[in-house]
Amino acid sequence: MSRWHRNSTTKRTTLRPDRPVGVVSDSATVRVAVDAAGSDGGPEVAFSGVRQALSRDPELRVSLVAPEAEFHRLDQWPRELGSRVRTRAAEVVLPADVNPARALRGARDSTLWQSLQLLADGSADAMVSGGSTGALMVLARHLLGTLPGVERPALMARIPSLHRPVWMLDLGANVSVDARRLLEFAQLGNVAYRTIEGHAPGVGLLNIGTEPGKGPDQIREAARLLEASEAINYVGFVEADQVFENRVDLVVCDGFSGNVLLKSAEGAVWLMFSELRNRLRGSLAGWIVRARLRAVHDRLDPAAHNGAPLLGVRGTVIKSHGGTCARGFARALELAAIEARRNLVAELEAQLLASY
Amino acid sequence: MSRWHRNSTTKRTTLRPDRPVGVVSDSATVRVAVDAAGSDGGPEVAFSGVRQALSRDPELRVSLVAPEAEFHRLDQWPRELGSRVRTRAAEVVLPADVNPARALRGARDSTLWQSLQLLADGSADAMVSGGSTGALMVLARHLLGTLPGVERPALMARIPSLHRPVWMLDLGANVSVDARRLLEFAQLGNVAYRTIEGHAPGVGLLNIGTEPGKGPDQIREAARLLEASEAINYVGFVEADQVFENRVDLVVCDGFSGNVLLKSAEGAVWLMFSELRNRLRGSLAGWIVRARLRAVHDRLDPAAHNGAPLLGVRGTVIKSHGGTCARGFARALELAAIEARRNLVAELEAQLLASY
Repeated sequence: MSRWHRNSTTKRTTLRPDRPVGVVSDSATVRVAVDAAGSDGGPEVAFSGVRQALSRDPELRVSLVAPEAEFHRLDQWPRELGSRVRTRAAEVVLPADVNPARALRGARDSTLWQSLQLLADGSADAMVSGGSTGALMVLARHLLGTLPGVERPALMARIPSLHRPVWMLDLGANVSVDARRLLEFAQLGNVAYRTIEGHAPGVGLLNIGTEPGKGPDQIREAARLLEASEAINYVGFVEADQVFENRVDLVVCDGFSGNVLLKSAEGAVWLMFSELRNRLRGSLAGWIVRARLRAVHDRLDPAAHNGAPLLGVRGTVIKSHGGTCARGFARALELAAIEARRNLVAELEAQLLASY
Repeated sequence: MSRWHRNSTTKRTTLRPDRPVGVVSDSATVRVAVDAAGSDGGPEVAFSGVRQALSRDPELRVSLVAPEAEFHRLDQWPRELGSRVRTRAAEVVLPADVNPARALRGARDSTLWQSLQLLADGSADAMVSGGSTGALMVLARHLLGTLPGVERPALMARIPSLHRPVWMLDLGANVSVDARRLLEFAQLGNVAYRTIEGHAPGVGLLNIGTEPGKGPDQIREAARLLEASEAINYVGFVEADQVFENRVDLVVCDGFSGNVLLKSAEGAVWLMFSELRNRLRGSLAGWIVRARLRAVHDRLDPAAHNGAPLLGVRGTVIKSHGGTCARGFARALELAAIEARRNLVAELEAQLLASY
C-alpha cells in the first residue's frame, strides 16, 4: 500500500450492491476499483483517464490497483483529486494474451485479481479493466459468482448509429450459442439498456436476412422465444447494415458475429479516414474541413463509445478496450459509475428471478 | 423471341466451357447470358449496365433475358451495340425474396431459369443475375451441376481494402459449416483469386483473434487443414478489422460471418457519409471538398466492387448485388467476361481433381 492509500480520507459510500432495487441517485458517492495496469497503454493511460473521470464527477472515488512503482504518478495531481484516490499495490500485470486458465491458477497478486477482489469484498461498487477479456470473464466469474441461471457472462458494447448509439451483445467469448443463450443475452441486455439509457429498448436478433425463414436454426428458434417473452420488446431480425440505421436499440447475437460486426465497422471507418487523409493532406481544402472531419471522427470513434459491461456476474464490471486512450478510459469509468448508482446488478437479478 | 434475336448476326464464339486449361485470351469473343429483370432496379438498370459493358468491350456478346415487353429499350441503342445483343423472352420475374424451392419447382419460364439454361446448353460462356441469391444457387446447381466433390456452391465477393481489394468467401447461404467446408472454400477461392487477379493469394481464416487457440473448434481444425495444404499459401487467422488493412488477399469464412462482415462495413461507410454530408451541406467547405469526397466514396462504393462469382458449379455464374446501379451491373458483366476468358471453371475442376 502506498502513502496515498494510508493518507486517504475517502469515506465509505452509502451505496451497497445489496441496496434495494429502484433506489437510484446519479449523484451519490460511488467507489470504482480500477485495474490500472492491464491496458495496452499501461498505467499512463489508465491514470490519466482516472484523473479525467475524477475531475468530471465530484462524487467519484477510485481505488487504483497497479505495481507500487507506478503510484509516483499521483504526486503531481491536485490535492482534491488525490484525496479521492486509494491505492492498492499488485505486482503482477497479466499480458493481453494471457491464457484465462493460467490467470485463474497463478495470479492472485495480479492487478486484475486484486481489483476484482476489491469489488468482491465490498470495498468497491464497480470495477474497470482494460486487460484480457478472457481472463476478466474467468476471474470475475470465480471471484464474484454469476446471477441466477446465468452460465457464462456476456459482454455488451455500444456502437455509433444514425440517431443514437446502439448496444449489442454478446461480444465476449461465447462463440457458439444455442437459442436459450440468445434469449438470456436479450434478457440481460434488455435490463442493462433500460438501466443505462432510461427507456426500454427495441430488441433485434442479428441475422443475414429479415424474412422469418432466414438464418441458422438456433436464431430462428431464439426468435420464437423472444416473440413469446412479455418482458422484451422484440422487433425482429436485423441485418448488420441496419444496425447503423437505428432499426433497433439492442442487437442480440453470438460472440463471434458480434466481434466480426464491431471490428468490421472499425476497419471500414479506419479505411475511410485513411483515404480522406491521403486525399486532403497538405491541401487548403483539407485545412478548411479539418474541424468537421474531426467532429465526424469523434462521433464514430470507438473511444467515445468505450466501456463494455460484463453482464451476468454478481458485480458491476466494465471492460475497457485494451487500446483505448485516456478519454476512452474515463468513459469506461463513467459507465461503471452509472451502472453502480442505478444498481444494475440488483435489477438484473430481480429480472432473472422473475423470468424463471 | 424478339426481332433482336431473329435478326441477330452474333456469330458463335470459339470459346467453350470444355476448352483445355491454360488457353487464355483477355480479348477473345465471349458470350454472357444476362438475367435482365431480376435486380431491384429492374430491366432499366440491367439494360443500361449491359450497354456500358458492350461499349467498353468490343468482343463482348450478350444474350438478354427479360419479358418481351422490355426489349423496346434496345430500339434507341446504336446499331453496333445492338448487333452484339441476342434476346430471349421470359415472362416470369422471380421476386427477390422468392423461396428457392419454389423457384426450382415452378418457374421454368423465369428470367433466372432461362438465362442459366443458355449457359447450361452452351449458348453462353457465362451468366449474370441480380436476383435472389438462394434461387440462383439452387437453380445453378440444378441446371449446371457441381464440380467434383463440391456439395454446395459458395459465393465470393470483393471488398475494398488499403492497397488492393480483398476477396472473401463464403457470402452465400452456407451459414453453418465444418472445417472440411472451410478448406473447400479456400481451395475454390484460391484458384478463383489466381485466375482473376493473376497471382496467388495469401489466405486467411476469419476469426476473433489471431492467436492459435482462438475461436470455435471448426475454425481451429480448418487452420490445421490449411497449414497442411501445399496448394494454399495460408497466412493465419485474420480479424475483421485487419481485412481492411490487406493483411491477406483472400478471407475464408462461413456465409453468416461473411455476410455480417460485408454488411457491417457497408453500414459503417454509409453512416460516415451521412454524417459528413450533414456537416458539410450547403457550406463553402463542402463545395470545395466535394470532388475528393466523391473520389473516396467511389473507391469504397460497393458498386465499384460489384460482381460475386458463384464458385463450385459447372459454369461461370456471377451474382450482381440486387440494389446495384448500371455501373455496378456493368462491372459484374466485366467480371463474367474475365472468368470465362480465363477459363476459371476448368481451372477449378483440375485443381479439385488434383486435391483428391
